[in-house]
Amino acid sequence: MRVRRGPNSHELSEWSVQVLLEGDFETCFAKGDNSKILPTDTMKNTVYSLARSSRAECIEEFGKELIDFLLARNPQVSAAEVAIVQAPWNHLHFGGKPHATTFVEGGGERQTAQIEIKRDGEFFITAGFGDLVILKTAGSAFEGYLKDSLTTLPETRDRLFGTALQANWKYSSPKLDFSSARTKAREALLAAFAAHDSKSVQHTLYAMAEQALAAVPEIREIKLIMPNKHCLLVDLSKFGQDNPNEIFVPTDEPHGQIEARICRE
Amino acid sequence: MRVRRGPNSHELSEWSVQVLLEGDFETCFAKGDNSKILPTDTMKNTVYSLARSSRAECIEEFGKELIDFLLARNPQVSAAEVAIVQAPWNHLHFGGKPHATTFVEGGGERQTAQIEIKRDGEFFITAGFGDLVILKTAGSAFEGYLKDSLTTLPETRDRLFGTALQANWKYSSPKLDFSSARTKAREALLAAFAAHDSKSVQHTLYAMAEQALAAVPEIREIKLIMPNKHCLLVDLSKFGQDNPNEIFVPTDEPHGQIEARICRE
Amino acid sequence: MRVRRGPNSHELSEWSVQVLLEGDFETCFAKGDNSKILPTDTMKNTVYSLARSSRAECIEEFGKELIDFLLARNPQVSAAEVAIVQAPWNHLHFGGKPHATTFVEGGGERQTAQIEIKRDGEFFITAGFGDLVILKTAGSAFEGYLKDSLTTLPETRDRLFGTALQANWKYSSPKLDFSSARTKAREALLAAFAAHDSKSVQHTLYAMAEQALAAVPEIREIKLIMPNKHCLLVDLSKFGQDNPNEIFVPTDEPHGQIEARICRE
Amino acid sequence: MRVRRGPNSHELSEWSVQVLLEGDFETCFAKGDNSKILPTDTMKNTVYSLARSSRAECIEEFGKELIDFLLARNPQVSAAEVAIVQAPWNHLHFGGKPHATTFVEGGGERQTAQIEIKRDGEFFITAGFGDLVILKTAGSAFEGYLKDSLTTLPETRDRLFGTALQANWKYSSPKLDFSSARTKAREALLAAFAAHDSKSVQHTLYAMAEQALAAVPEIREIKLIMPNKHCLLVDLSKFGQDNPNEIFVPTDEPHGQIEARICRE
Repeated sequence: MRVRRGPNSHELSEWSVQVLLEGDFETCFAKGDNSKILPTDTMKNTVYSLARSSRAECIEEFGKELIDFLLARNPQVSAAEVAIVQAPWNHLHFGGKPHATTFVEGGGERQTAQIEIKRDGEFFITAGFGDLVILKTAGSAFEGYLKDSLTTLPETRDRLFGTALQANWKYSSPKLDFSSARTKAREALLAAFAAHDSKSVQHTLYAMAEQALAAVPEIREIKLIMPNKHCLLVDLSKFGQDNPNEIFVPTDEPHGQIEARICRE
Repeated sequence: MRVRRGPNSHELSEWSVQVLLEGDFETCFAKGDNSKILPTDTMKNTVYSLARSSRAECIEEFGKELIDFLLARNPQVSAAEVAIVQAPWNHLHFGGKPHATTFVEGGGERQTAQIEIKRDGEFFITAGFGDLVILKTAGSAFEGYLKDSLTTLPETRDRLFGTALQANWKYSSPKLDFSSARTKAREALLAAFAAHDSKSVQHTLYAMAEQALAAVPEIREIKLIMPNKHCLLVDLSKFGQDNPNEIFVPTDEPHGQIEARICRE
Repeated sequence: MRVRRGPNSHELSEWSVQVLLEGDFETCFAKGDNSKILPTDTMKNTVYSLARSSRAECIEEFGKELIDFLLARNPQVSAAEVAIVQAPWNHLHFGGKPHATTFVEGGGERQTAQIEIKRDGEFFITAGFGDLVILKTAGSAFEGYLKDSLTTLPETRDRLFGTALQANWKYSSPKLDFSSARTKAREALLAAFAAHDSKSVQHTLYAMAEQALAAVPEIREIKLIMPNKHCLLVDLSKFGQDNPNEIFVPTDEPHGQIEARICRE
Repeated sequence: MRVRRGPNSHELSEWSVQVLLEGDFETCFAKGDNSKILPTDTMKNTVYSLARSSRAECIEEFGKELIDFLLARNPQVSAAEVAIVQAPWNHLHFGGKPHATTFVEGGGERQTAQIEIKRDGEFFITAGFGDLVILKTAGSAFEGYLKDSLTTLPETRDRLFGTALQANWKYSSPKLDFSSARTKAREALLAAFAAHDSKSVQHTLYAMAEQALAAVPEIREIKLIMPNKHCLLVDLSKFGQDNPNEIFVPTDEPHGQIEARICRE
């Protein structure tokens, strides 16, 4: 957790950092020779120390800096992977204005990044977010699917479509404005979710991926995971009541799980 | 979960309802005589059915209506308690405008109410919220406390003060504008948290309670639970670096737990 | 966490301790005067220090000792409450024999105690356990219950009966063999659950409480919380298959919640 | 959940099944053509129906059967992956004897399997378990590791070594006695953990993997994930007490994360 103390306002960031190193560790596993092991406790200290000296403004840049630092000091390491999760702290608002030194943790959605860099220069920079629970109450149907002897689901032209969206996209370049790219990709995904005339979760997932790829040219592929958070229409006819798509029971399990990886051609 | 489908916009509510009944159930416990048991499955159906017919706009009103319904139909019941938790669904915003039929679940803070009504008319209506994680980076000290042979905590004039606030307040009347009272109480609590020159968590807790009692005359007592989410200053001096209250490690356990119930005199 | 290192075997205990103090703290809340506050950090140190010097073999005795220590050193405290949860560590077994220095955490069930002692000598000692998930596949019916216009549940003479049992019992004496009493109470509860010819959850709950009260004379009241973990029979007739009480879907929500406090007359 | 009702005893199994299908679904994603979609609701029904008719006694066999069934009925599917988690239900024991119709959920450790089969016959069968929390109080050191300017960890010849073990191993054959192989692999892993004279987590992980590979010739590779559940020795010298490796504070975060995949040569 880092506090930046400006004259008019403070800034608060909370980043959870995971570091994984690969390399020439055979003797430490097979022989109990610890001489090449960088203790995980030291990695922890490295994160704290770098957090103090770094000027990185986003998790992607901090991840790159951390890996550069570790590769430079540890010749036995051939590749490093850093995954960072950002907690959603925001200034507390009163009457439309942010309070300078008071913050609220938003819960829910978390911004993530995973940076992998090999000593030979190969890199994988993945940005994304998880746990974004969204739901649309219009523009979602599911009809015309395959039927067999085990089918019981009725077709519907108007259902609730809820999901806990997890999105991860890979960049084709290691140098770009990551914050701006993240904002554009996220907005494209949400705009597509809201506007799409959905024939299925799969159909909407693809439309969302397409819009994100269109919005950010540096994305070379995107993976979306969209579990289907089912909202079952309650049968009130037994009680002499109608239910014009108004009262639902959300259920956790069992649920549909729709995933796809869409790559730019 | 209820969807209200207006011409220009939909409204979405998700309420988790717990119903507990007390009454003349001795033979069912002691003798296995089920004739006075209203099955929990029927209570569940009652909630769905009433959700369809009710015009309640807030969880307090729905709770009262549900208890009236159950007491009227079940003479063996002497008291009923309904606890409701509201999930934080909001319209998704693009460019500052809400999308009419797309929603996002905010995570974190949850609005709650607990309504208990006895057949003889006695009532307890408690409103509140939980899981509101807040933190202030200025205006928090902790000095001058009792020292003994087991003290190791250093005094500080400037610490981070974070908590997961749980607030519950009891009303002196069963008839009032619950939504307005909730908004005023919540805002008073947060304003006090932000503005207070804190000598201790206890000190700030009391100031928050005082402001809520001042803002809403119908509150007769309020309970605040404020676990101390410690953010430990990292000692970077071992690495030749200073740390001017900038880099912290948040810890979950062990933590301080500060609670108090403040009653209007 | 405490390790006792015997010549032939080690013993491992992990206890999570919560301490709450009540007393003359008005000026600290109302005035920001910290001089009577025993910091929670010092309470934490007190637990560690006492863990080293204490000879308590069970959580009830440790709780009593901790409260005596705190009351003796803090005249401003009028009452203290200690709640302890014991993690279920056991020796790892190979071929029926325990390994002397290797342990496995059993998950699930946790032994608990809550000790409250006032300066005037009044005491409440509650022992119990939580998160014990049990299920019986025979000897459970639910018939003859109240029916009304909202009833849809079919009667059954043979259902699965699953619950996550939480049990807490209060002792009438502060001095007794707590470990032996715990073992007897727990076994009585489980034996009754297994053997009972259940007409309802309520019916079985009462039978369990009765047996625990009979097994341990020092218990003056017992509270049992038994959420009904529903296992729904799957309708396979649509697929041309029967389902003779064989295939079920466990569901979490909504669920029935059965609770009662049974007092010795 | 399946109940087998024998004359002398019942058997209870609870398996959570995830099914993922890959194949010719391009038009459903890109065009909203649902004609090739097997709804997830139908997959769910398939699991229930097969659970009734199947004679599979273990999760690996049930996974294979389920995939064969789905591939046979769905020509558009090119590969299917089934992941199953088994809840740890056991007969409740009294006086050393199992009760015929009463069960207890063990919590903690869960047996898992992942079966992937492609239409061309390629297969991956992975068995394993997760959430097995184990700890050894002897035979664990950590010395001689790399030191740099960010090192603060002291060397130790005697530390607590705790982990939440996750183990997954791949079989070289699709036909074998999976239950027996699972038992042997699990016992080899635990025996090695208990007996090993550990120079580091890495060292012990490797020894465990070696023993599992030796015990079950059909395992071609094994992945072990061993987060280091740190137990920090409490410094009691400030209170005039010694602490001969007796009192520890378990911490969750930050923690070391040790993982490796060991392949048979």
